[in-house]
Amino acid sequence: MSDEVPKAEFSDSVLIKSIIRREDGGSGLAGKKARIGGWVKTGRKADKDAFAFLELNDGSCAGNLQVIIDASLADLGQLVQTGTCVVVEGHLKLPPSGAKQKIELRAEEVLHVGPVDPAKYPLPKTRLTLESLRDFVHLRSRTNTISAVARIRNALAYATHTFFNKHGFLYVHTPIVTTSDCEGAGEMFQVTTLFSEAERLEKELIQNPPPTEADVEAAKLVVQEKGEVVSQLKSAKADKKEISAAVAELKKAKENVSKLEERSKLQPGIPRKDGKVDYTKDFFARQAFLTVSGQLQVESYACALSRVYTFGPTFRAENSHTSRHLAEFWVVEPEIAFADLEDDMKCAEAYVKFLCRWLLDNCLEDMEFMADKFDKGCIDRLKMVASTPFIRLTYTEAVEILEESVQNGKKFEKEVEWGIDLASGHERYLTEVKYQKPVIVYNYPKDIKAFYMRLNDDLETVAAMDVLVPKVGELIGGSQREERYDVIQQRLEEMDLPVEPYEWYIDLRRYGTVKHAGFGLGFERMILFATGLENIRDVIPFPRYPGRADL
Amino acid sequence: MSDEVPKAEFSDSVLIKSIIRREDGGSGLAGKKARIGGWVKTGRKADKDAFAFLELNDGSCAGNLQVIIDASLADLGQLVQTGTCVVVEGHLKLPPSGAKQKIELRAEEVLHVGPVDPAKYPLPKTRLTLESLRDFVHLRSRTNTISAVARIRNALAYATHTFFNKHGFLYVHTPIVTTSDCEGAGEMFQVTTLFSEAERLEKELIQNPPPTEADVEAAKLVVQEKGEVVSQLKSAKADKKEISAAVAELKKAKENVSKLEERSKLQPGIPRKDGKVDYTKDFFARQAFLTVSGQLQVESYACALSRVYTFGPTFRAENSHTSRHLAEFWVVEPEIAFADLEDDMKCAEAYVKFLCRWLLDNCLEDMEFMADKFDKGCIDRLKMVASTPFIRLTYTEAVEILEESVQNGKKFEKEVEWGIDLASGHERYLTEVKYQKPVIVYNYPKDIKAFYMRLNDDLETVAAMDVLVPKVGELIGGSQREERYDVIQQRLEEMDLPVEPYEWYIDLRRYGTVKHAGFGLGFERMILFATGLENIRDVIPFPRYPGRADL
Repeated sequence: MSDEVPKAEFSDSVLIKSIIRREDGGSGLAGKKARIGGWVKTGRKADKDAFAFLELNDGSCAGNLQVIIDASLADLGQLVQTGTCVVVEGHLKLPPSGAKQKIELRAEEVLHVGPVDPAKYPLPKTRLTLESLRDFVHLRSRTNTISAVARIRNALAYATHTFFNKHGFLYVHTPIVTTSDCEGAGEMFQVTTLFSEAERLEKELIQNPPPTEADVEAAKLVVQEKGEVVSQLKSAKADKKEISAAVAELKKAKENVSKLEERSKLQPGIPRKDGKVDYTKDFFARQAFLTVSGQLQVESYACALSRVYTFGPTFRAENSHTSRHLAEFWVVEPEIAFADLEDDMKCAEAYVKFLCRWLLDNCLEDMEFMADKFDKGCIDRLKMVASTPFIRLTYTEAVEILEESVQNGKKFEKEVEWGIDLASGHERYLTEVKYQKPVIVYNYPKDIKAFYMRLNDDLETVAAMDVLVPKVGELIGGSQREERYDVIQQRLEEMDLPVEPYEWYIDLRRYGTVKHAGFGLGFERMILFATGLENIRDVIPFPRYPGRADL
Repeated sequence: MSDEVPKAEFSDSVLIKSIIRREDGGSGLAGKKARIGGWVKTGRKADKDAFAFLELNDGSCAGNLQVIIDASLADLGQLVQTGTCVVVEGHLKLPPSGAKQKIELRAEEVLHVGPVDPAKYPLPKTRLTLESLRDFVHLRSRTNTISAVARIRNALAYATHTFFNKHGFLYVHTPIVTTSDCEGAGEMFQVTTLFSEAERLEKELIQNPPPTEADVEAAKLVVQEKGEVVSQLKSAKADKKEISAAVAELKKAKENVSKLEERSKLQPGIPRKDGKVDYTKDFFARQAFLTVSGQLQVESYACALSRVYTFGPTFRAENSHTSRHLAEFWVVEPEIAFADLEDDMKCAEAYVKFLCRWLLDNCLEDMEFMADKFDKGCIDRLKMVASTPFIRLTYTEAVEILEESVQNGKKFEKEVEWGIDLASGHERYLTEVKYQKPVIVYNYPKDIKAFYMRLNDDLETVAAMDVLVPKVGELIGGSQREERYDVIQQRLEEMDLPVEPYEWYIDLRRYGTVKHAGFGLGFERMILFATGLENIRDVIPFPRYPGRADL
């Protein structure tokens, strides 16, 4: 056995987690040499400044490694500042008995110091609020909370890919830029090059002004002249060579006129036609938007490959300033062919349970941090969801239960009535108060749901379902899709939607149609559910919302 | 043991791959009952139309399952059409000896038919060119080629997550919408709500025209009157109640004036200020773009969590119509702290080898299809890259080799000269002709590379590297990042770049700076490399390029 702890691959240092996250807490490595790099969480000098204790963290896990450094090795005053980057080499040793840590490092060499001026560093040792950290998105991942969120987010993403691959789903990259404007352009971001093109043109026209009318007239005169020359030569039965030279000159003169005419039409500003913006001049030759969902596109892959999922960013240009809305957020959307609503609900339940179990098995240290600092119940909540069968209620049953609770004195902000969508307060009541476990509500009134959801035999409801969980309410929304050609046509008509933009979608029903179902899980909502954090802006690395898109 | 083949989870059917992709080709399942769903690849009637043979494919693998259906069960004429969706139940049986397949299904019940009108179906049995398939992106995943690409793409994505998680990298979702315009806005797409806002306002102003000057004057007159009333009441020492009622009316009148004045300023069209578009009125209160790379943002996470990667879409508004460019494409970008260029190259090589090995281990059937139809050598290429150490050359050595080849009669389209970037022809020569294996070229002249690449001690070159592979040339570009505060400042200055937009990036060097390195792999290029396909538009589900963004 080597007397050195093996370095992480592609690095000259050992990851701290490979020391302190061993079953023995690292004690079995005592006596071994190791090179460690990390950032100082806290540092203090001791024994009349003869040496310093540093709590070093490298983000590979929540815990720190304690490093002891002699004053002879480096400027300890610089080293003990929170945020300093340090690379040291030394031997691991057992701490004095009674110490919290199982192992520590006695430095023998300081190989790198990335200093911090504590007077300027925006992240002092004292805890900042999550809100004020949002002004430093480029640095906030150095805090305990945001780095724990990053590890939990990574674990949930990896668990997602693991779950769907395990079950034979193919990951499909649906487009970000889309010309299917399915939920109304009002809430969509537009993608364009018209502004930069206009700017470019404006500069170009200043440097090289367009021809005046007189310039064009002069050029036309040249054409006339050249034309006359040609006629004269022809009627004079001149040499063929001479004629074709004159014709060539005439052609050139004509080309010059059309070039000038083209340029004289150039107008600075956004191109317009018939009183409207002329999107045929835009990059994609039509209006293009950022996607609000990959569902419709991924359905086309499900109707060929049977089981697919998409996991990517989606966008909403809503002017929402709440703790639950982002302009850019990530969504997981599986789609299954040869599956109905029942299969869809089974899949959603299995997936959510898998995610919860994964965090318990792979992220317990970070979950314990969350339980300690933010939400005492978060670990129990994961355990409960991982092991409890989800309640299933039809929408109609859910409304009855809510009405009953109102009769028993429960007050809701929004009224309960069959035919109106459940409000967040209703959903929270069902999952947090009435059942205290996940609830799937299904078979919603058709008038409050999208045209693509499958019409049930009662002709009043559609095969839609929402998964509600304690802490966040709606976590998943899904449905069986309407696979019947005539029914989907009729639904579009009923809902007064234009058919043309959906022709490709209807093609999936026109040719080899198949029963299929799917759902969407809001990835940030899942992280809120898991961690107990309150604000969605803290669970995505770079939050985008009205007025803010830092970096 | 059950006498039924277990259904896929969350479905009422068995996936075809779980029958025919067994080691025994499915023969061990003979005698078992199974329900199968899929789309007809080819169908034919036999024995005077007494029954039909269908080659059924469900996309779970490249292979088909042969299904035999009696005329008594269904309208065979409908069933045999290519593209028809069929769900059947029956028993698996061994085929007659000499047959290609190891197992087939004798249908006993037809549970679903999703028919196709062959006169209208855009994907006939005869093979269409990949180019013409691009007009049917919603249906082309039903073809052998595009479905094989989808499975290979999925495998490479999953392998990517597996590789980086195995090595302790955290997946970080860098933003799609960005306000860091790092490579010049000209090639970036802009994200805006100004057009939809202008349209909304225009409609609103038509429905509810802004007040005229006279309206405003009239409202001001009311204020004057109400003011006089208040003065009169006050000087008359009227009842307090009466006065405050008059004051309230005055206040209301004043509010009305400012409301009218506000509305009278409303202008239809894009908001402008000082002759320019007023982006403070846009959704993010400033100009926002689609990202061209997540690197700079992911560096901020590497400088806290040590090892991170991003895998997501990036965008380029280039007017390129080549077979190698897309406006929207996916990139994998790892970033490693406590790592230098050597570590970076090691990581890149290990990652590419891992991807190749993964395809050989998990996608051989699809790779064999590619070898058969498109590129005989593609499997050997994967094997070679998976097992051969990559050649390493400095840029200077590479130029010498190229110059030597020119002296020996080799002709390149672009000239070879130290200080000019290698052209695609040079790169292909090195990897395809000279070495016939992957080549990493490193230490490029600083003037042709980005400001953030680490300056070498020679002060002439930077610690950049490109991985070149046969078939596509450059597959990866990476570098060690400049971690020295004063050097990066100087590099920005030298390159005439503004400092302000990069202040946050410089902060990473200002506070606890760390040696780090990373690279980017073009995901579609990797698929071209693996499959041997020629056009990048065929290896992404929904290609976006100038003039086209279908769906």
